[in-house]
Amino acid sequence: MQSAKHSMTVKTDEFFRKADQLIAAGRFIDSKGWVPATSGNFSAKLSDGNIAITVSGRHKGRLQADDIMLIDSKGNSLDGKKPSAETLLHTSLYQRFPDVQAVLHPHSINATLTARLFKHEIVLKDYELLKAFAGINTHETRISIPIFGNDQDIPRLADKVENYLDRHDHAVYGYIIAGHGFYTWGASVDDALRHLEALEFLFDVEIRLHGVTRL
Amino acid sequence: MQSAKHSMTVKTDEFFRKADQLIAAGRFIDSKGWVPATSGNFSAKLSDGNIAITVSGRHKGRLQADDIMLIDSKGNSLDGKKPSAETLLHTSLYQRFPDVQAVLHPHSINATLTARLFKHEIVLKDYELLKAFAGINTHETRISIPIFGNDQDIPRLADKVENYLDRHDHAVYGYIIAGHGFYTWGASVDDALRHLEALEFLFDVEIRLHGVTRL
Amino acid sequence: MQSAKHSMTVKTDEFFRKADQLIAAGRFIDSKGWVPATSGNFSAKLSDGNIAITVSGRHKGRLQADDIMLIDSKGNSLDGKKPSAETLLHTSLYQRFPDVQAVLHPHSINATLTARLFKHEIVLKDYELLKAFAGINTHETRISIPIFGNDQDIPRLADKVENYLDRHDHAVYGYIIAGHGFYTWGASVDDALRHLEALEFLFDVEIRLHGVTRL
Amino acid sequence: MQSAKHSMTVKTDEFFRKADQLIAAGRFIDSKGWVPATSGNFSAKLSDGNIAITVSGRHKGRLQADDIMLIDSKGNSLDGKKPSAETLLHTSLYQRFPDVQAVLHPHSINATLTARLFKHEIVLKDYELLKAFAGINTHETRISIPIFGNDQDIPRLADKVENYLDRHDHAVYGYIIAGHGFYTWGASVDDALRHLEALEFLFDVEIRLHGVTRL
Repeated sequence: MQSAKHSMTVKTDEFFRKADQLIAAGRFIDSKGWVPATSGNFSAKLSDGNIAITVSGRHKGRLQADDIMLIDSKGNSLDGKKPSAETLLHTSLYQRFPDVQAVLHPHSINATLTARLFKHEIVLKDYELLKAFAGINTHETRISIPIFGNDQDIPRLADKVENYLDRHDHAVYGYIIAGHGFYTWGASVDDALRHLEALEFLFDVEIRLHGVTRL
Repeated sequence: MQSAKHSMTVKTDEFFRKADQLIAAGRFIDSKGWVPATSGNFSAKLSDGNIAITVSGRHKGRLQADDIMLIDSKGNSLDGKKPSAETLLHTSLYQRFPDVQAVLHPHSINATLTARLFKHEIVLKDYELLKAFAGINTHETRISIPIFGNDQDIPRLADKVENYLDRHDHAVYGYIIAGHGFYTWGASVDDALRHLEALEFLFDVEIRLHGVTRL
Repeated sequence: MQSAKHSMTVKTDEFFRKADQLIAAGRFIDSKGWVPATSGNFSAKLSDGNIAITVSGRHKGRLQADDIMLIDSKGNSLDGKKPSAETLLHTSLYQRFPDVQAVLHPHSINATLTARLFKHEIVLKDYELLKAFAGINTHETRISIPIFGNDQDIPRLADKVENYLDRHDHAVYGYIIAGHGFYTWGASVDDALRHLEALEFLFDVEIRLHGVTRL
Repeated sequence: MQSAKHSMTVKTDEFFRKADQLIAAGRFIDSKGWVPATSGNFSAKLSDGNIAITVSGRHKGRLQADDIMLIDSKGNSLDGKKPSAETLLHTSLYQRFPDVQAVLHPHSINATLTARLFKHEIVLKDYELLKAFAGINTHETRISIPIFGNDQDIPRLADKVENYLDRHDHAVYGYIIAGHGFYTWGASVDDALRHLEALEFLFDVEIRLHGVTRL
């Protein structure tokens, strides 16, 4: 509903700049086949704490300015549009990590296979590409990407993620939801996209090696 | 033959709008490698019940306006052009399902492999991407995509499809013809394309898991 | 050497039209990864019997008009440029088959793997896509694509091909040279390209099934 | 720091021409998925012995003129920008091989898998595509691509490479760093890119055959 309150919300230049970044990210991510059909969702935080986020049900490779909406930090629509059902997974990341400025959720074959083959977590170690993750400057390290069961009850799923993050004080760069893709984030849309590309590459390598080493 | 009757058929703005949608869909589908050589065919229903459909033998990734023709609901050419040999598979879907406004038939490696590996049907369950199918709003469900033997006798093949649909009153989102690709449909070209992308993704995942689990 | 004789050769509109078709074909073939580095070569016959063919050593995905040269039906350069070392494989096909108007030689991973896995021939049967080959109108048929050992002695390799074609009077749509790609041809550049796309698709399917059925 | 000395460095037309070649090479390499995130680096030697090289931390598929910097033959920045941490791997190749005019370092899945599956070297033989390497004119030969362990200590890694090259006087066309991609080079950006494409193709074929032959 376009209420009077909504029509009062003025979209800033910053909103449109971030929206453009999300649209370009979507085009790139889709060109790789990582957001098939209308899967996935993306967001970017604005300096006033509000959030630009993809509208529910749009194709992420063919986003228009109109497909990016404005919500507050609690996930309430500020322009009358309907945000993704998974908005809470975005807002809780922004709330927990003040430095996070963008959250990307692709839905790829590699993430889907990773969840099936690696069950509870995938450990990535000894890869030069680990240096793509903020704060890592050597391949001689390891990161763990946790895998959660899928759940249509998003508050319950968000709790599971919160609980995991509460129990782990090392840096976490993303998580997989089984049969559903993965979430990653960063200090800018570019940073989150770098993490996304690195995770896709590393999942791909691990899946292929898994096939070989099982033989 | 361009008879007088044919030249009388006036193509409406709606025809050209739908034709443009089919051309764009073809470009996207071909970019993924899902309509090699001149395989595949696409159609969209108009509000008067006539149907815009691809002309026989054209490359579906490089369609021009001239490669989309007009047929009536029985499959008779209204403009003197020759429709696909498989036109009956389109018209019978429109006749059975009044809500169907578009039918897409890609011819992909994944569909070909699925028919070889899964024989009579492929069951897709517990995937978030099932929500891409109209009317499904949870991953906690399953759909079955039947696989029919290939047949150059299209009326006989259409009968086999009709017979299957008569016996199943749950929603059916597509079917595979062995060695020949698959058919899917929807309430618009966009809807059918969303179903197509989702099926390609899910076939791909299942084929890869099939290889692993057989080990 | 640009001799006086060469500078007398007038390139016709037909030459430039065919050259454009070969350039566009190259762009498409390269986009699929089927002519890596400077591998592959392409040609098209003109109505006077001369042949437009790619110059030796150029990247087939980034061809310019200048990269297509003119030879006579024996393979002699008519414009002073140096044709591919494999020109004889083109001219002997034109000589044998009067209807052939274009010859395409890609160099793909699928052709390379096919030669390693299937040794002397690959048989393709029961595929709807067989209808992409000129003169075939049912999937209920089979074609054989012979595989020859690679040889830097092109006249000797051409003899091996001639010998095979002499002994087989059924239609032959292409042949593989082990570790070296394949040749296919048709009544136009479009026809040859349709054969090329169909063969790539079918090789791909057969290779993947080979892996599965060997398990 | 933009010191007075730096601002004195005049970038020549040659610099900008080579920079354009590296930018175009990056776009092509990224389109294949061979420089994910901000991995990889590229350089080209100028006629005065200075070197155009990619700035540290930029995405190699989306390079701007500003992302290519100037260093001297020892690797010192001439324009105040920060070159890749791996600059020494470039400069030592230029120092050893006077004919080398370009060095490309992609970071691909195939190189990563090759290091895991083939350990110390991968031998490539009997491929027509070996003719893509400068100086090879038959498939009846073999080349070896050595695989070195990854090391964040670049001088130590460079020493390992130097040591290998000292002990081998046959032509070496590239080397792999485990978990980190590969280096290749040539007498021009085009030559290095041809070597890169050929190595990617050959790694891909060998990896797939490795899976099959291990069964």
